[in-house]
Amino acid sequence: MSESRKITLNESEIPTHWYNIVADMPNKPLPPLNPGTQEPIGPEALAPLFPMELIMQEVSQDQMVEIPDEVRDIYAMWRPTPMFRARNLEKMLDTPAKIYYKYEGVSPSGSHKPNTAVPQAYYNMKEGVKRITTETGAGQWGSALSFACSMFDIDCEVYMVRISYDQKPYRKMMMQTWGAEVFPSPSEKTQAGTQILAQDPDTPGSLGIAISEAVEIAATNDDAKYSLGSVLNHVLMHQTIIGQEAIKQLEKAGADLPDYVFAPFGGGSNFAGISFPFLKLNLTEGKNIQCIASEPTSAPKLTRGVFRYDFGDTVGMTPLIPMYTLGHTFVPAKIHAGGLRYHGAGAIVSQLLADGLIGAEAIDQLESFEAGVKFAKAEGIVPAPEANHAVASVIRAAEQAKIEGTSKTILFNLCGHGNFDMLAYQDYFAGNLKRHEMSQEEVDSAVSKIDTPTVESVKEMLMG
Amino acid sequence: MSESRKITLNESEIPTHWYNIVADMPNKPLPPLNPGTQEPIGPEALAPLFPMELIMQEVSQDQMVEIPDEVRDIYAMWRPTPMFRARNLEKMLDTPAKIYYKYEGVSPSGSHKPNTAVPQAYYNMKEGVKRITTETGAGQWGSALSFACSMFDIDCEVYMVRISYDQKPYRKMMMQTWGAEVFPSPSEKTQAGTQILAQDPDTPGSLGIAISEAVEIAATNDDAKYSLGSVLNHVLMHQTIIGQEAIKQLEKAGADLPDYVFAPFGGGSNFAGISFPFLKLNLTEGKNIQCIASEPTSAPKLTRGVFRYDFGDTVGMTPLIPMYTLGHTFVPAKIHAGGLRYHGAGAIVSQLLADGLIGAEAIDQLESFEAGVKFAKAEGIVPAPEANHAVASVIRAAEQAKIEGTSKTILFNLCGHGNFDMLAYQDYFAGNLKRHEMSQEEVDSAVSKIDTPTVESVKEMLMG
Repeated sequence: MSESRKITLNESEIPTHWYNIVADMPNKPLPPLNPGTQEPIGPEALAPLFPMELIMQEVSQDQMVEIPDEVRDIYAMWRPTPMFRARNLEKMLDTPAKIYYKYEGVSPSGSHKPNTAVPQAYYNMKEGVKRITTETGAGQWGSALSFACSMFDIDCEVYMVRISYDQKPYRKMMMQTWGAEVFPSPSEKTQAGTQILAQDPDTPGSLGIAISEAVEIAATNDDAKYSLGSVLNHVLMHQTIIGQEAIKQLEKAGADLPDYVFAPFGGGSNFAGISFPFLKLNLTEGKNIQCIASEPTSAPKLTRGVFRYDFGDTVGMTPLIPMYTLGHTFVPAKIHAGGLRYHGAGAIVSQLLADGLIGAEAIDQLESFEAGVKFAKAEGIVPAPEANHAVASVIRAAEQAKIEGTSKTILFNLCGHGNFDMLAYQDYFAGNLKRHEMSQEEVDSAVSKIDTPTVESVKEMLMG
Repeated sequence: MSESRKITLNESEIPTHWYNIVADMPNKPLPPLNPGTQEPIGPEALAPLFPMELIMQEVSQDQMVEIPDEVRDIYAMWRPTPMFRARNLEKMLDTPAKIYYKYEGVSPSGSHKPNTAVPQAYYNMKEGVKRITTETGAGQWGSALSFACSMFDIDCEVYMVRISYDQKPYRKMMMQTWGAEVFPSPSEKTQAGTQILAQDPDTPGSLGIAISEAVEIAATNDDAKYSLGSVLNHVLMHQTIIGQEAIKQLEKAGADLPDYVFAPFGGGSNFAGISFPFLKLNLTEGKNIQCIASEPTSAPKLTRGVFRYDFGDTVGMTPLIPMYTLGHTFVPAKIHAGGLRYHGAGAIVSQLLADGLIGAEAIDQLESFEAGVKFAKAEGIVPAPEANHAVASVIRAAEQAKIEGTSKTILFNLCGHGNFDMLAYQDYFAGNLKRHEMSQEEVDSAVSKIDTPTVESVKEMLMG
């Protein structure tokens, strides 16, 4: 047999700690602001929504946070995840680059999302929470949380954007199989939903509305808390087991540290998961590993947005967070990579980008599917549309390496499989997909609507 | 952390040989007969359909057949597959039994089928075959072969039963993503299909018709061969890597040899894959491991059929094979476990059953889905409907162990995930599934239509 394709680790090699990059950041992320008063808020403001342990993690400055045994035990159902050397893809591209990928699609719900869903469910269970509410678009996050709640006997209520609820029933059924209740959003379960339905009974819904409903239920019921699948500091931290395992696996394969680490970028948890442990080597050991986020051209907040305080949701109910954003009312084009259709980026990732410590590039969805089909033919795994953005970045880098004749080492996070996304591939093959490059006018128009505080004004307020 | 859940092996522990149980069988399977003359046929009769190396494997008496390096190299994309101790399920059932499962759903197409699709594509490639034809129902086998052909740059033509082609587009898209051409069957590409369409333009198609089309193309085109995903000796043999890995994994976990090995049963490859290496221990080392096939009550050939020569297809084009059968014209009820809707069983498995060396039990689809949902809630993985039959058998055995207060060790083959089968779960939750117990009258009626030679008559002919 030729050189190993698959690099595996033993169950005992599941990381024992999550890595909190805040400890090593030269500039810490600025604090969140109260959405009403625009004053900095402390941990207590989040108590109605989250269990205290997660709030403490959200504001923690500790470099390493221990993973409870009960969480590692559930992780062991699919972790450590395999790493692969993409030898077939290298051959197809005829590139001198060495391409490795970490494959998170082996989790029960088929993506990296359970890495944070499990500890979130666990800490809620420990603090006596009986039910957790959340929102979901196409269902990737909702199914991860449904699985996690089934592991700890917690009721799970998922508010699923109505158009997805009607048109993409597979993930809905998966959530129900794990025992979750799934409601099309807007629903009559909440005031927010009821009001919206009264105005427009036929609304297709939106992620912003679904967030409002899930938050409302948690905020108004003592036995319920809310859970979010990306953006927040503790969510990003939970994902860092991906990169920690990857470092061990590259060592085991006798590979160099990567020149490039790529991941798709929606709110930041996927990118943070694989890249933060490598950024730690940059920040603490002087390494020079380029970590690059692959975002869609239809929601280019990192490459074309502004660094500004903004809301996490569309309606403006959440705290204001310092983020690269296109504005919380910006509605991205309806690309198939639903997980990347988000207007902003988490506070940590935004600060890292502002400080020049990470990079970003925008990938059009046509290029992303072209890359995904190449990958499937070479490596066998059909990637999720989100993952295809990173695959496209990898192919760009591998082709550049060929032009330069340099043997770069490239790593990327194959965050999930595309089993539930085959209609997207059908659309691609049928020629139904369009390019979604935003014009400068469109970007300017989106950004001009932002009326929330600037980062500079908040810095001045904090100094004053 | 508590005792290991997941037992992994290294890439170097992928088996080096397939196990050919024929070598150890006390009674060898009887030879196939020519469908026209009803005379025994030799290997040469299969040459228009299969490459010579596979034909030699089909008739081989060697105990071990070496796996080519190129095949092991592709296997390494997902093998060795993990084994799990189902500790959550044990706890849910409150049973003293120890339950282990081998998980084949980690393959690119999500089932055990690539284990034989890859070597079949490989040997075709080695003998210069440019395209392979096959049939598929819901698409599990077609997608496995499409993947395998993409690995060796062979064109793949899949004749997909029309009703599945129209109603279950996800696997069709997956096949196309891997570069296969997928035709709804019956099609106008063949004489068989053209004739059937002329009679009934709106026919939903059937697996029998699709086989006829795929075989016709291979038989009438020099550059094409045909490939089958179960039943045949070489196909069953390729799957034995599952059980070989399982034995190593049980050793590694410090577990006893199993008291019971369960697998779903359609044509036999799934069951053979996990059980034959354990049967080897029975046959050559005097062990007493009960290997039990879980078939659906709607196609109960092993528990209620007859041991008789019969055709592999509905139309009667294939050689006659000695098999437990309900008759080649028998049409099973439309249960969701499409992979188990087959009238007969492979020759080897049938001989083993006739000799009392394996067992079988029939599971109703309602019991199978009830078991599958329990499993999903406990273990996180949503099983394919086929796999649910084995899960139901496992739960029966675990509950019996509880009644008896004995700590049995149970192993089963979780042959695939249910990601493409969520509509089946939806039907189950909606209460749309019916019991499909056949009456004795229905069984008698099906069996009475069989007009092919008896096993006894062929034995007499061979002796004479």
